[in-house]
Amino acid sequence: MFEFEITAQDDSGARTGLFHTPHGVLETPVFAPVGTAATVKALQPRDLRELGSTLVLSNTYHLYLRPGDQLVRDLGGLHQFMQWDGPMLTDSGGFQVFSLSDTRKIDQDGVTFQSHIDGSYHRFTPESSVAIQENLGADIIMAFDECPPPRDYNYVKQSLTRTHPWLTRCLAAKTRPDQALFGIVQGGIFRDLREESARFMIPLDLPGYAIGGLAVGESKEEMYEVLEWLQPVLPANKPRYLMGVGAPEDLVHAVLRGVDIFDCVLPTRLARHGTALVRGGRLNLRNAKFARDERPLAPDSPVAQYSRAYLRHLVKANEILGHILLSLHNVGFLHQIMGEMRQAIRKNNLQQWGAEFLKPYGKES
Amino acid sequence: MFEFEITAQDDSGARTGLFHTPHGVLETPVFAPVGTAATVKALQPRDLRELGSTLVLSNTYHLYLRPGDQLVRDLGGLHQFMQWDGPMLTDSGGFQVFSLSDTRKIDQDGVTFQSHIDGSYHRFTPESSVAIQENLGADIIMAFDECPPPRDYNYVKQSLTRTHPWLTRCLAAKTRPDQALFGIVQGGIFRDLREESARFMIPLDLPGYAIGGLAVGESKEEMYEVLEWLQPVLPANKPRYLMGVGAPEDLVHAVLRGVDIFDCVLPTRLARHGTALVRGGRLNLRNAKFARDERPLAPDSPVAQYSRAYLRHLVKANEILGHILLSLHNVGFLHQIMGEMRQAIRKNNLQQWGAEFLKPYGKES
Repeated sequence: MFEFEITAQDDSGARTGLFHTPHGVLETPVFAPVGTAATVKALQPRDLRELGSTLVLSNTYHLYLRPGDQLVRDLGGLHQFMQWDGPMLTDSGGFQVFSLSDTRKIDQDGVTFQSHIDGSYHRFTPESSVAIQENLGADIIMAFDECPPPRDYNYVKQSLTRTHPWLTRCLAAKTRPDQALFGIVQGGIFRDLREESARFMIPLDLPGYAIGGLAVGESKEEMYEVLEWLQPVLPANKPRYLMGVGAPEDLVHAVLRGVDIFDCVLPTRLARHGTALVRGGRLNLRNAKFARDERPLAPDSPVAQYSRAYLRHLVKANEILGHILLSLHNVGFLHQIMGEMRQAIRKNNLQQWGAEFLKPYGKES
Repeated sequence: MFEFEITAQDDSGARTGLFHTPHGVLETPVFAPVGTAATVKALQPRDLRELGSTLVLSNTYHLYLRPGDQLVRDLGGLHQFMQWDGPMLTDSGGFQVFSLSDTRKIDQDGVTFQSHIDGSYHRFTPESSVAIQENLGADIIMAFDECPPPRDYNYVKQSLTRTHPWLTRCLAAKTRPDQALFGIVQGGIFRDLREESARFMIPLDLPGYAIGGLAVGESKEEMYEVLEWLQPVLPANKPRYLMGVGAPEDLVHAVLRGVDIFDCVLPTRLARHGTALVRGGRLNLRNAKFARDERPLAPDSPVAQYSRAYLRHLVKANEILGHILLSLHNVGFLHQIMGEMRQAIRKNNLQQWGAEFLKPYGKES
């Protein structure tokens, strides 16, 4: 279980692989849509399967608060609860509670925080995060860590003195053999701290390594640099998971730097704001220029039967079907580019494919 | 075109039929979900087909205001615009503008009203209502009528002096041979006025007759009485359409009184409020008793794979998937009972089926 086979390697360092989980084999590189509250917003599990989703993420913080992880366990676990029978991943709750900047207090043992739903007080520790994730029952679970402000060297350095012992405590607390616990490399935008964090985790021989604390305020160049530093440091035979990143250009840059797994709310959140991801950029469907545009969002879109004019109408009228169709499109688009990247890696021409794909994204790329 | 074949008749007076339209044949009695703004809220056309929807209604008032009927026409008509290739029906806009009680003014020629979107002024006449409906291009279009307060005898009587000439004007204005124009019998809760209205329309030999102005404040007993009065008066060889009625017990009572076509926002609106229609009543999924209920909403629900506990969770978290799944369930439930009624009519035992079905609905039935 949790074997990672590398099936092809590109000169760039990108690779394709197969990651074995109790609910199926993941073809990597893979993008996971986010099902925060045990649902990928606006999409049915059947929709996800048809789009090519293979891995779905859910959030420990949200499910702990509502409906409660013990209830999910008693009803057969998260797979049964939300009727997703493929591989699943839960985060540790760490990122969410650290985002509640005004209402949480960190100490060396854990974090006390207030619920965003009713203001009630709660506490997460490495042990409770693992216990909750065991109740939820995802295939991949995450170590409880701190996500620090990425540019504050002293804070980030200090933060590693919590994140690293917390990882050790997570491993000690873990009891289920059918779940893989990934460690999360932190260290902000600082090479020495990133390498220190990676070197702490490598001897633990974890089934996978996440790269955390990115896409939280640093520049894209800084993000890509961190990935470049870590590429030769992280063990090549384990999957690498870049957390919370889903902009198409970032996916390409990160795969070129050896990343295997991604998750992000971006495609579904943009959809609810009326924005479609397309090759080279984004379409804001509120724009009047789409009012009579009979073209599909893209010829190969999963919702190519609908005109941009109709989608714009749904967005303007704030119709739920607009959220649904744009979510189908955006999630499908990210799966399409992941599929194209896997194919390019197999042909050893990801650098060429990437240069072509990134061209219209301008300076940022 | 627009032939209506009666295929079976029950001792109650209920009948099954086939109504031929340019986009397919409708098996009656039939329930039509409402796609107000060119979308049945939260459902994809594919979902509708799989649920067994055959007829979809859209609203002239809403589409005239947004995105505009000329735009819909220029983009190929409503079927193409919303990707529904089955039979469609549009109302005349009359009911909606009369509902804007504070911001509309009726005269013998038409109605002036303010948009609910931006407060701008507009005017509907019989001629403009038909022109809009011709631009939209539904298979069945409705005469422009007035929906009066049902209990005010003098007002209702006076109102017929508008509704009847307006029907004549609609017929004169109509140009498309591929659309059937139905007249709408008005007359409130008064037998003489209902019969007067029906007798005005019958010589016009329309392809179908709607019964309007019900489910707008009168009691259920009063509604059923109106249907009983009209059953022997309306021509037996034309479809009868009871507008805006969709409560399960009402569907049964109306089919028993010879009604063939229904539409209502009820199943999708209840879904968005977290309520499921089930045999014998409704389940309010906000109720705490469903928190750990592992049963499906019903064994034969189109969403039977999901537990009530999960659906309750989605409703409590205000997740779009809750709207989707409950809409699938509620629309599917109404189609199921329509199908059971068609079968019972064929076996000439609708009265027995109806008595059984209505038993738990208590006094109201």
